[in-house]
Amino acid sequence: MAAAEQVPIPAIRRLSLYLRQLEAFQGAGRQTVSSRDLGHSLGVSDAQVRKDFGYFGQFGRPGVGYRVPELTERVRGILGTDKKTSVVLVGVGNLGRALIAYRGFAKRGFELVAALDDDPGKIGVRTPGPKPLVVRPVADIASVVRSHAVRVGLLAVPAPVAQQVAQLMVDSGIRGILNFAPVMLRLNGDVSVSSVDLAVHLEQLAFQVSACGA
Amino acid sequence: MAAAEQVPIPAIRRLSLYLRQLEAFQGAGRQTVSSRDLGHSLGVSDAQVRKDFGYFGQFGRPGVGYRVPELTERVRGILGTDKKTSVVLVGVGNLGRALIAYRGFAKRGFELVAALDDDPGKIGVRTPGPKPLVVRPVADIASVVRSHAVRVGLLAVPAPVAQQVAQLMVDSGIRGILNFAPVMLRLNGDVSVSSVDLAVHLEQLAFQVSACGA
Repeated sequence: MAAAEQVPIPAIRRLSLYLRQLEAFQGAGRQTVSSRDLGHSLGVSDAQVRKDFGYFGQFGRPGVGYRVPELTERVRGILGTDKKTSVVLVGVGNLGRALIAYRGFAKRGFELVAALDDDPGKIGVRTPGPKPLVVRPVADIASVVRSHAVRVGLLAVPAPVAQQVAQLMVDSGIRGILNFAPVMLRLNGDVSVSSVDLAVHLEQLAFQVSACGA
Repeated sequence: MAAAEQVPIPAIRRLSLYLRQLEAFQGAGRQTVSSRDLGHSLGVSDAQVRKDFGYFGQFGRPGVGYRVPELTERVRGILGTDKKTSVVLVGVGNLGRALIAYRGFAKRGFELVAALDDDPGKIGVRTPGPKPLVVRPVADIASVVRSHAVRVGLLAVPAPVAQQVAQLMVDSGIRGILNFAPVMLRLNGDVSVSSVDLAVHLEQLAFQVSACGA
């Protein structure tokens, strides 16, 4: 089994996509799946599927394939989404509120334990939803991270303050940031950053749409 | 100059990132930039920067570098964001409302011309913001696409209906979809899909955070 840092990032990304497929198969009551079927819908070869799982040990049996419930659990275990991960949100604007309402978090083992903002009009407000949170000032972040053992933070603040808030998150002990602000973060410390940049996505589409002619 | 379909997708993605940097340089009043400076902050080599621009013709001068305002305009021209692109939003839930409020669209030449939803409680409601839109039923999509020459659609509907709505978008003439629903779309027709999958991002972070130990 390879050390985590030896596994290529694209392989990890594909594990997420395999998991999505496995969950769909499981929902449909399917018991076994081949590398070929698993890769097919993602446009990935069966050899690639076997190689990706190969980083994490021995899976499946020749001629039989993978058992769907077992493989689902093992992939969740590899990704770490079989455990609860405490998440904090910084920035309770429109996007922040959308993130609070997003049901996919809980389904993947992510529990939002606090929402922080520096707008006096937002601090103390209860968020909507089944598990309401009271918005706290950003200055509380270190104590929130400590008391809830938070590892991952969602950054949904305006671009001009994103860099400073992100560094504060890292200094408070956060180890992974999902960044929604349209800036490139440069952070000191041991932290993984994943950025959701809508502008980049839109530019890709603009290019492809105009490249398609007509 | 390479045909658009010969340019690798990662090169297009880097063009977006170069553009972000160029805009920052321009904002700071800088007049020229070298391949090296442009690549440096993105962790890209100067040779890669030159190769990426090389797909689109001759840029810059040896020893002088690139003129920032000129290069900015040319990259916008390549990506197609120098022109106005009409965009339609389908799904006016929490995420849809966040997208309506997102200022990055207009800045990149994307104009939201319509917001559609099938919830009778939402149809007819005016969206907030400086250019309010009245939410229309999804059935109006073909006429909206025709009357505004819409090329790109934002898909922010719940997962169970995403596939069906996306195909309706394509059938109505939409050529690029930015998909926020956590499903893999399989569409008939000439369409580019870019997916923003929060679950995948979170799983990547979960893996990296748990792989970092502690």
